[in-house]
Amino acid sequence: MGPMKLLRTDRGVAVDLPGAAPLQLHHIIGVGRNYVEHALEQGAKPPERPMIFTKNPFSASLDGDDIVVPEICQDREQVDFEGELALVIGKACRDVSESEASDPASGCILGYCCANDVSARWWQKEGAGGQFNRGKSFDTFCPLGPVLTPASEAGDPMALRVKTTVSGEVMQDAPTSAMTFGPAYLVAELSRGTTLLPGTVILTGTPSGVGMAQDPKRFLRDGDVVQVEIEGLGSITNPVRFER
Amino acid sequence: MGPMKLLRTDRGVAVDLPGAAPLQLHHIIGVGRNYVEHALEQGAKPPERPMIFTKNPFSASLDGDDIVVPEICQDREQVDFEGELALVIGKACRDVSESEASDPASGCILGYCCANDVSARWWQKEGAGGQFNRGKSFDTFCPLGPVLTPASEAGDPMALRVKTTVSGEVMQDAPTSAMTFGPAYLVAELSRGTTLLPGTVILTGTPSGVGMAQDPKRFLRDGDVVQVEIEGLGSITNPVRFER
Repeated sequence: MGPMKLLRTDRGVAVDLPGAAPLQLHHIIGVGRNYVEHALEQGAKPPERPMIFTKNPFSASLDGDDIVVPEICQDREQVDFEGELALVIGKACRDVSESEASDPASGCILGYCCANDVSARWWQKEGAGGQFNRGKSFDTFCPLGPVLTPASEAGDPMALRVKTTVSGEVMQDAPTSAMTFGPAYLVAELSRGTTLLPGTVILTGTPSGVGMAQDPKRFLRDGDVVQVEIEGLGSITNPVRFER
Repeated sequence: MGPMKLLRTDRGVAVDLPGAAPLQLHHIIGVGRNYVEHALEQGAKPPERPMIFTKNPFSASLDGDDIVVPEICQDREQVDFEGELALVIGKACRDVSESEASDPASGCILGYCCANDVSARWWQKEGAGGQFNRGKSFDTFCPLGPVLTPASEAGDPMALRVKTTVSGEVMQDAPTSAMTFGPAYLVAELSRGTTLLPGTVILTGTPSGVGMAQDPKRFLRDGDVVQVEIEGLGSITNPVRFER
């Protein structure tokens, strides 16, 4: 069926489904420390089970949109990029097996795209008692795209390569095979006792190389341009703008 | 306009708006440690800023529905109740002031109801790297109701009383005036740089007396009945059933 367009709506971003109403992306789940090297660069151990958090649904944005840094994130150097492989759930999933989730015909995983899990580190940690949600929920902090590639056409999601550049400099470049928990495992595991509705986005975690772990640290600045590219899925490019 | 009905939908729970399409409750935010005594009973300090987390939107259920404990929460004593005052956002809010949020005419807060923030403690803590979402997201883990009382008819939300009983025994009984961050403050603060969409639920936190802090600990058992009652808003009663 070919790649599906992503559309701006008054509730965030939706997938333009061929021959059906657009699928609103209403729920965004992130997976923490899903690449061993990234866990280690944060001084943390790789988790034994998926460590999940969420982002406000209205944080979703599109390829080309500005990452707008609000004033309350400007008084500390803290706004960071996280290039990631994202997937979108296509049908309600509960207690699905890993093999069902990995079968494109099941519809569990509608498709894949690039994502940038933009994170305000202070708000993610000290600012909200250690619960990640707030620092990851600011408007425009979840660029997705450029399109949604159907699961049947994305190839093996564990055989891709995620690359993030900031203003032309390569910061992250890793194979998705280095993930601890792959996409199908994540869908199966997170659906245990829990219904994942269609339109749920799962960000599968970021590899090493985020700004807070660079030496010297490299947080996003006004005027930067962040690009996340994934083999076969295209790339998203988002300028950074400090709100005034 | 009188209390609004809550409806079961294929996406969880919606508010039956008079003369308009039902408002789907698509996003559930919780506030951690918002009553000083509850923070202390957990061995934690009351937070300086709201500590927020989310629950899966499909966890929402209604008055009278079973709290169904899935198998993966049965191998440890861990499923706990949290009686709370909940509010529903009625219009998109970003950077709203506390006085705007507190004015019923603004529509920011559509109304109030009782909630039970059911929590599987192991999954909330050890099971998911300390991020609360997973342990709070199981299907049926967010009873709401019995109706949504319009903000204009709920009186002062900081002058109510939350009472939780488990199988007839009073476990929690506290005035909402003991909250650290009140409803209007929460809406204003969480809307900073972040759009809260209509249909967002905010659970304003639980008072002291949860099962894990009782001596001896009192987790929910198969056959228990949990009731959360809030002065003027009614009560929700939910039987506990261990899934087999």
